[in-house]
Amino acid sequence: MAIKTPRTLSGFMELLPAPQRQMERIMEILRETYSLYGFTPLDTPVIESSEVLLAKGGGETEKQIYRFQKGDADLSLRFDLTVPLAKYVALHYNDLTFPFRRFQIGKVYRGERAQRGRFREFYQADIDVIGDGKLSILNEAEIPAIIYRTFSALGLKRFRIRVNNRKILNGFYASLGLTEKAGDVMRTVDKLEKIGPEKVRDILTEDFAVSPEHAREILFFISITGENREVLARLEQYRGRSPLFDQGLEELNTVVNYLGGFGVPAENFAVDLTIARGLDYYTGTVYETVLLDHPEIGSICSGGRYDNLAEYYTEKQLPGVGISIGLTRLFYVLGEQGMLNPELNTAPADVLILPMTEDLSAAIAFATELRDNGVRAQLHCEEKKFKQKISYADKLGIPYVIFLGEDEISAGVVACKDMLTGEQTKLDAKATIYRIKAGLDARNQGSVIRE
Amino acid sequence: MAIKTPRTLSGFMELLPAPQRQMERIMEILRETYSLYGFTPLDTPVIESSEVLLAKGGGETEKQIYRFQKGDADLSLRFDLTVPLAKYVALHYNDLTFPFRRFQIGKVYRGERAQRGRFREFYQADIDVIGDGKLSILNEAEIPAIIYRTFSALGLKRFRIRVNNRKILNGFYASLGLTEKAGDVMRTVDKLEKIGPEKVRDILTEDFAVSPEHAREILFFISITGENREVLARLEQYRGRSPLFDQGLEELNTVVNYLGGFGVPAENFAVDLTIARGLDYYTGTVYETVLLDHPEIGSICSGGRYDNLAEYYTEKQLPGVGISIGLTRLFYVLGEQGMLNPELNTAPADVLILPMTEDLSAAIAFATELRDNGVRAQLHCEEKKFKQKISYADKLGIPYVIFLGEDEISAGVVACKDMLTGEQTKLDAKATIYRIKAGLDARNQGSVIRE
Repeated sequence: MAIKTPRTLSGFMELLPAPQRQMERIMEILRETYSLYGFTPLDTPVIESSEVLLAKGGGETEKQIYRFQKGDADLSLRFDLTVPLAKYVALHYNDLTFPFRRFQIGKVYRGERAQRGRFREFYQADIDVIGDGKLSILNEAEIPAIIYRTFSALGLKRFRIRVNNRKILNGFYASLGLTEKAGDVMRTVDKLEKIGPEKVRDILTEDFAVSPEHAREILFFISITGENREVLARLEQYRGRSPLFDQGLEELNTVVNYLGGFGVPAENFAVDLTIARGLDYYTGTVYETVLLDHPEIGSICSGGRYDNLAEYYTEKQLPGVGISIGLTRLFYVLGEQGMLNPELNTAPADVLILPMTEDLSAAIAFATELRDNGVRAQLHCEEKKFKQKISYADKLGIPYVIFLGEDEISAGVVACKDMLTGEQTKLDAKATIYRIKAGLDARNQGSVIRE
Repeated sequence: MAIKTPRTLSGFMELLPAPQRQMERIMEILRETYSLYGFTPLDTPVIESSEVLLAKGGGETEKQIYRFQKGDADLSLRFDLTVPLAKYVALHYNDLTFPFRRFQIGKVYRGERAQRGRFREFYQADIDVIGDGKLSILNEAEIPAIIYRTFSALGLKRFRIRVNNRKILNGFYASLGLTEKAGDVMRTVDKLEKIGPEKVRDILTEDFAVSPEHAREILFFISITGENREVLARLEQYRGRSPLFDQGLEELNTVVNYLGGFGVPAENFAVDLTIARGLDYYTGTVYETVLLDHPEIGSICSGGRYDNLAEYYTEKQLPGVGISIGLTRLFYVLGEQGMLNPELNTAPADVLILPMTEDLSAAIAFATELRDNGVRAQLHCEEKKFKQKISYADKLGIPYVIFLGEDEISAGVVACKDMLTGEQTKLDAKATIYRIKAGLDARNQGSVIRE
């Protein structure tokens, strides 16, 4: 038979078992944390009708779409989880209860140019709160709490949630009479960290015909930094120039006010007037999250408040607020940076049982007892030398090996070796299980990410 | 703006939040149960190169494949999890430790004719043990234990794991000189339940030119039923006619012998000589699982032992044994049969907090405390009437509602209403959380499926 060389497409992450276990752990933590805030899990098809998925049309994304015919149908793979959510909410509007809070962790597809660290198939982990007509600012205030708990649960400490409010920006630019240029200005300001203030000023004045005085005002405005209270106090000085600005400032005050109650430490949060996010979409609070020691990674969790989730599918006004984690890219970067805790158990089993008798009954009974007690147990009954079986446990990092020979069986004990310490016990089944469970609890203390 | 009517493609399951929660629970139980047997989670791309995925070529499946071009690449969506596993094991052979035990729960795609209860995108939940060169029969003996624990954990009681051994069948047909016709004979015998023994005999003799005497022998053989011991005893009478048969009988004896030790009750298991499964693939023990009260559903978990997982990708001999649950179809059928336990909590939150003061600090602090204690809490701060907020909790089935007004805040208590009993308490935060957690534990006792 002709052999076809196996390969996995470039841009598609396919992990070995140990890192896959770490990825699963991360997803489990995301599911748990999102659930604590009353988000319900959702799952939508990977394939949608192109007509529906691309209702918005145009844009850079469309070129990257995996789109194809199947029979008469024009189909596309989803490229994010937001458009499917919009479709879902519009389609099932009558069956949903609003505010509707959902999380979704799923694969999305973008045929980007393949390069290191770029993926064509990748997980997004999204949460969104959707209101029917209206949505309280409290939902925007709660988002930093969710981001904080999520990354803390993963083990991160040195990260910062950057927050801005689009009403503040839009109001400020309106007060300068720059509403029509606001998009270009914000796109330029967004480059501040990369290119510096002088280059920003040059682009504003030269490319977008912003007057030097306005350019100066803009640079002064976005240079407002410091403690949250300080930034808010300085923003107070702009109050009264634009109703939109004033409303944005109210909202930002609310968000900042409730941080403490939501358990977000001040050092993990910063008002940052330079961030804007998706220009044609967000209308209120916007969020970015950066790793303080790895600014080069960019934002690992972003989102914001929008006014119209599903305008392409329904006349209904459905405002919302949401954030998204690019999970596959984050996992890749954490791996590259050596930030995935190697001490966490990634073995497929907690216990490897080596029966030393022909009759396997005792070994099987003990395996069953371990499993009844929630311990992951594997029987190793292959025709291999003893040394090879020990090496099997060793390679996989299985923490305990059980030996069951005639002697142990007749004495009513099991021999149990801790593969880390080398310590060996001969105890009865119950005591052995107790010891193993205590040991596993101690080992599973660590977090997935370490800084 | 032109509105595009939202729709989901036919043949693609998209669940509302409450059933989605039940689906998630089922997947969680599968992950937990599979893990107890030392299977490690795996995730492979949904898209593969057509050349690789379709290396085996031909067959009914190929017509159903979602296959398309993207740039120069000829791509296909996976149609099962077995071919990607074969690719994975061949590709990563040097990085894996054998026996390699993996589980995978993932979506697969088949463009079947759309009809009720048939899905084009559906989850499979697979486990496989792959050996390098050899694989102990113990792995085959363990599979019924995994099936039993899985379905028991889901709440099923009245199911039966049917087991046969292809060596017994092939050996038996060889002893009749029917090796060349064995495929046709087995396909005919497979219809026994549907068409009855007389029709089977007619097809054997008329369509496949099996002699009347052989047809009689075949019908006699496959009619061997009864208690496991009885079936095995009757099979003993065939021993010595074919070495393959004898080996199969040994294997079946081993599988049956260890059932008790593996915790599988006799009533959930039956040797069934009529089942054969994938004819060109399985070579040893084969499995089917049927719901006793719903035989019309067919097998809900099937698989078997095979000799060559990855023959299209490697010269290496990689025998294995695996089973697969067609999860989406199973979930659909359980729903249709009313077997999904409606008493389990499918609410997005355990607690809905209704702040009754303008300052939300106390409500936010309590929400944070609930979440710190692992209780899923949602703040409801929308501009709605009190009655509408209660109705929100009611519609979603949120079990507890918290009221926090000036009185409660100044008295240092929270008012907590059990939405099921109507009972209301005013206790301090700690005592309230204790009460809620105890109540939730009691509510979450039930299983996902009820018969």
